[in-house]
Amino acid sequence: MTKRIKRIGVMTSGGDSPGMNAAIRAVVRACAYYRVECVGFMMGFQGMIDGDYIELNARSVRNIINLGGTVLKSARSKEFRTKEGREKAAAHLKEANVDAMILIGGDGTFRGGQLFSAEHDIPVIGVPGTIDNDIFGTHYTIGYDTALNTVIDAVDKIRDTASSHNRLFFVEVMGRDAGFIALNSGIGAGAEEILIPEEDLGLDRLLNSLERSRRSGKTSSIVIVSEGDKIGKNVFELAAYVKENLPYYDAKVTVLGHIQRGGSPTCFDRVLASRLCVKAVELALDGQRDIMVGMMNNEVQAIELEKALKSKPTINKDLLRISDILSV
Amino acid sequence: MTKRIKRIGVMTSGGDSPGMNAAIRAVVRACAYYRVECVGFMMGFQGMIDGDYIELNARSVRNIINLGGTVLKSARSKEFRTKEGREKAAAHLKEANVDAMILIGGDGTFRGGQLFSAEHDIPVIGVPGTIDNDIFGTHYTIGYDTALNTVIDAVDKIRDTASSHNRLFFVEVMGRDAGFIALNSGIGAGAEEILIPEEDLGLDRLLNSLERSRRSGKTSSIVIVSEGDKIGKNVFELAAYVKENLPYYDAKVTVLGHIQRGGSPTCFDRVLASRLCVKAVELALDGQRDIMVGMMNNEVQAIELEKALKSKPTINKDLLRISDILSV
Amino acid sequence: MTKRIKRIGVMTSGGDSPGMNAAIRAVVRACAYYRVECVGFMMGFQGMIDGDYIELNARSVRNIINLGGTVLKSARSKEFRTKEGREKAAAHLKEANVDAMILIGGDGTFRGGQLFSAEHDIPVIGVPGTIDNDIFGTHYTIGYDTALNTVIDAVDKIRDTASSHNRLFFVEVMGRDAGFIALNSGIGAGAEEILIPEEDLGLDRLLNSLERSRRSGKTSSIVIVSEGDKIGKNVFELAAYVKENLPYYDAKVTVLGHIQRGGSPTCFDRVLASRLCVKAVELALDGQRDIMVGMMNNEVQAIELEKALKSKPTINKDLLRISDILSV
Amino acid sequence: MTKRIKRIGVMTSGGDSPGMNAAIRAVVRACAYYRVECVGFMMGFQGMIDGDYIELNARSVRNIINLGGTVLKSARSKEFRTKEGREKAAAHLKEANVDAMILIGGDGTFRGGQLFSAEHDIPVIGVPGTIDNDIFGTHYTIGYDTALNTVIDAVDKIRDTASSHNRLFFVEVMGRDAGFIALNSGIGAGAEEILIPEEDLGLDRLLNSLERSRRSGKTSSIVIVSEGDKIGKNVFELAAYVKENLPYYDAKVTVLGHIQRGGSPTCFDRVLASRLCVKAVELALDGQRDIMVGMMNNEVQAIELEKALKSKPTINKDLLRISDILSV
Repeated sequence: MTKRIKRIGVMTSGGDSPGMNAAIRAVVRACAYYRVECVGFMMGFQGMIDGDYIELNARSVRNIINLGGTVLKSARSKEFRTKEGREKAAAHLKEANVDAMILIGGDGTFRGGQLFSAEHDIPVIGVPGTIDNDIFGTHYTIGYDTALNTVIDAVDKIRDTASSHNRLFFVEVMGRDAGFIALNSGIGAGAEEILIPEEDLGLDRLLNSLERSRRSGKTSSIVIVSEGDKIGKNVFELAAYVKENLPYYDAKVTVLGHIQRGGSPTCFDRVLASRLCVKAVELALDGQRDIMVGMMNNEVQAIELEKALKSKPTINKDLLRISDILSV
Repeated sequence: MTKRIKRIGVMTSGGDSPGMNAAIRAVVRACAYYRVECVGFMMGFQGMIDGDYIELNARSVRNIINLGGTVLKSARSKEFRTKEGREKAAAHLKEANVDAMILIGGDGTFRGGQLFSAEHDIPVIGVPGTIDNDIFGTHYTIGYDTALNTVIDAVDKIRDTASSHNRLFFVEVMGRDAGFIALNSGIGAGAEEILIPEEDLGLDRLLNSLERSRRSGKTSSIVIVSEGDKIGKNVFELAAYVKENLPYYDAKVTVLGHIQRGGSPTCFDRVLASRLCVKAVELALDGQRDIMVGMMNNEVQAIELEKALKSKPTINKDLLRISDILSV
Repeated sequence: MTKRIKRIGVMTSGGDSPGMNAAIRAVVRACAYYRVECVGFMMGFQGMIDGDYIELNARSVRNIINLGGTVLKSARSKEFRTKEGREKAAAHLKEANVDAMILIGGDGTFRGGQLFSAEHDIPVIGVPGTIDNDIFGTHYTIGYDTALNTVIDAVDKIRDTASSHNRLFFVEVMGRDAGFIALNSGIGAGAEEILIPEEDLGLDRLLNSLERSRRSGKTSSIVIVSEGDKIGKNVFELAAYVKENLPYYDAKVTVLGHIQRGGSPTCFDRVLASRLCVKAVELALDGQRDIMVGMMNNEVQAIELEKALKSKPTINKDLLRISDILSV
Repeated sequence: MTKRIKRIGVMTSGGDSPGMNAAIRAVVRACAYYRVECVGFMMGFQGMIDGDYIELNARSVRNIINLGGTVLKSARSKEFRTKEGREKAAAHLKEANVDAMILIGGDGTFRGGQLFSAEHDIPVIGVPGTIDNDIFGTHYTIGYDTALNTVIDAVDKIRDTASSHNRLFFVEVMGRDAGFIALNSGIGAGAEEILIPEEDLGLDRLLNSLERSRRSGKTSSIVIVSEGDKIGKNVFELAAYVKENLPYYDAKVTVLGHIQRGGSPTCFDRVLASRLCVKAVELALDGQRDIMVGMMNNEVQAIELEKALKSKPTINKDLLRISDILSV
């Protein structure tokens, strides 16, 4: 029989993403609503190892729903990858009477959590928080929608200057292994080409497409490039290659970088975080464990962590087709 | 046998919404891609009646994806509700060799389109463009996501001053018949109470809830009120009533009004508009008619206009529960 | 001889304005830099009366420079208008060993501060923080630039929908006694007419101007109305009057309200707050008193509170002429 | 005697900046108001050389006041640096009956204009439009205020993630020869250090300052680096150097790049552009020439182009002191 959950821990781990504070708030408020205690561990797994935590009540999380970053801070912990590290963490959790942990983060976080739960019999529930949207079992991760809007806002600005100068811009966006950000922000920003890790268009196709664009009367162009694009060149090499082969283009590069992780979360991300985390608390109270909550077809669902970790979500290839059509 | 579509008309009608320009762009670009002609009618049905249209090619819609409003303008036409009005429109469409119409708007637009199609054998395809999200057959209408973000951006600002002054604010948002905007922006903005047309909480419950909030240590509160809330008082009367009954509250009112219709569309709305409108053109070319395209469970789907008009989408009542939990 | 200042108090009072947190931060950091102590009184004068204050060190004000509102909260205190109220405040200040007070607020705040300083021999230094820009002795008050941008952002959105529908919009902005916000945001937003308290254009002129606009080919118009405009009608009556006399206009009203007080401060307001408050601390340490710091011609200057309170800054009438020229 | 001005040309040249459209609009509207004709040359001097221009009336510039970029486009023209190029331009201007030119741009633009005016007896009037604020004779150039806000908006986002991860960020901003952007955005963003071309702090001082920051309890830090900083290392080398010497810091780099040139102009920039350009037209009509309009101490003033070109504005060194105090 599962023991009654009286105290829940929450932490944020891995790369931070907008909406993590809305998620923390929802965990804390749901605990307050169901009259269980809540503690927040600082700096992800490291705070569990160090026993670094704070008591959280409904009022502790006021006025944070709209803030970027995470008030619990985040980190990647090497020590947690060791058995000893995880033992220290377990000892601190027991000392602190924490009956279950809610882990907000990406797949690295969930992998650590799964191992920890198996070794130390402490239930964990995962909440997908990452801008990359690369978690199986949810159509949307917390922070992804905000990151998309940060990107298109930046590209709108770049387009102002691109079209004032008849220029070609290469804009690198985040997404080392997954093209979600590039693909959707590329369509949203009206990019002429989108290069993603999942699809190698090849350099020839890129040149052809840019030439076609120009012949069709376009005077400026934007190419969105995912960090991990498969074309085998980084964004600066890419721009140099194009400049060499299409000398009439004044090609420029912008690497958007870490602005994509920050900013006030969108309504979508705040509602997503709220819904997922209320459910996470309810499932924890219900004695469930080793699962991840996700949003599938507008409904909150739970999936076993193991399943979530075994697969990768796939991009919608139809969006590449849409992008082609719209950049005609 | 359906005749081959060689020329497609597009218009925007009813209340304008952010993303309509992205939608127009997608129609025009998809036409260019499939090498059919495209014309845009000005001011919705009125432009059809008056024969007021412009030729549109791929370059006509450059740099509009990020603009609020609609470059084709919009209006509500009384004349189109008359048989004579619709006859004039049909005559102009035939004169202009328009083989099919794509109508971007809400249910008033679709109703007019359905009637027109039946009377004059001109295929129409509807695209849901309205901030209200009150169209059956799509989980999201174009403009809704942007409106939500406009609302939470405004409420975040109001919360700055509310919490600096320990005040209670009533914020009226759009949604005469549907509480979608109020409900989702209310959760996103962290509102203490949300009043919507679909649910009459009653004045007593509101007072109780505000008192409970205060006793729990909250020093400021936000109440989101849908235009069409069922409590039987407008937002000013509501504030007066609360002031009278809870005199320690310094209650203020803000009516957000038409800022909710404008602004640069979010990435979500741009991608939504792009996907729906490419599909609308493809369906038109395929000879289909009297349907509306929509986004259901992340997939573009078509539904008969008749069906779309017969029902109303329902709000997710679970969100009211989430809101209650989070405002603890 | 003035006694050495070892402990400085700071508070925010009156209507809150964006940049007040940047101002508080600058006071606190300047105190830390000069190695004097700093305490913050909550809720303006009320916190002085109640002895409600917190110790502030350099780290207390981290990550607040970008936040709207005021972490010290603000209020208007009736009790401080009484001799007894001010005596309580003086007693608490002495108890707390506060040697000088920095008051961030508007003229109401300064008037209270001046009286208090005269009665109780506690030096006060004023910092102009209000969105209204109606303080003599400074070209800019903290929060004014942010409020202007909030207004034009809102009016840009309204213009989207106004020009999509060929509409006339009346937009009421803050400024009961001074037209600074209306005049500058009106020019910035490209308004067709601007109504301010300092100038009564008369209703006839407004009608003539709107008719001329329409004849010149304008299809939509924005009129910015200051709360305290002198035309003798409120914004709703104004719209009704115009509708009646110029029936071809579909006149709408938006009252921007309290969103104008919130939001993340602009760079201008953050730099202004930083410069003024460092100076305020330095002047306090220098033994000065009963003065206000201000920005005149890009230089920080001090002016006697008495002088600042005796006059009102005047709007630049040339801007009305500019507005006329640009709305041609 | 100067001949009467009946037709004015306008162009934008050099790097584009937000507010150039507001400037164009003000030129066009002022011409309409004074009933003189106006033509716009495309792509700066190149359009003059090529005779590429459009007629502009009051309605041509509707709804552009809020757009980034420049509808007349911009370029740097090599051909205009040749005598032949300028002769072609003069011929086209005479053909087009242009009596005076208003040049919106930076010092490169003004230098070209001055030469051209001397050689061909066509009056030119300069309007300072550049984000760099590096023009003598005006306290503010058009676009500078917007660029500052773009920078602090980006740095606010970076700070979210910096403080979530206890990181050190180097953020490179524009300003090859002038530290205006770095200095003011650095104060506005609450940066710990600001590196500008005008002042070589030296690497030792930077390391000391960062160490001191850390010892004082700061867990994250932002260093703003001007493109043209004098420390002799680019921003990536700088980060590497710090990482090597202060290994506890996880130093990251973000190069903001061209987003700083785009975006909807702030109210400040719109009003500035409006005031300067109305004046520019009025001075042209008054027969003046070879001058630049600028904003000095909140008043529009004219200065001889020669004078404007001979000097460089200097940064306010007191701001470096303020920055030091505030990063305590």
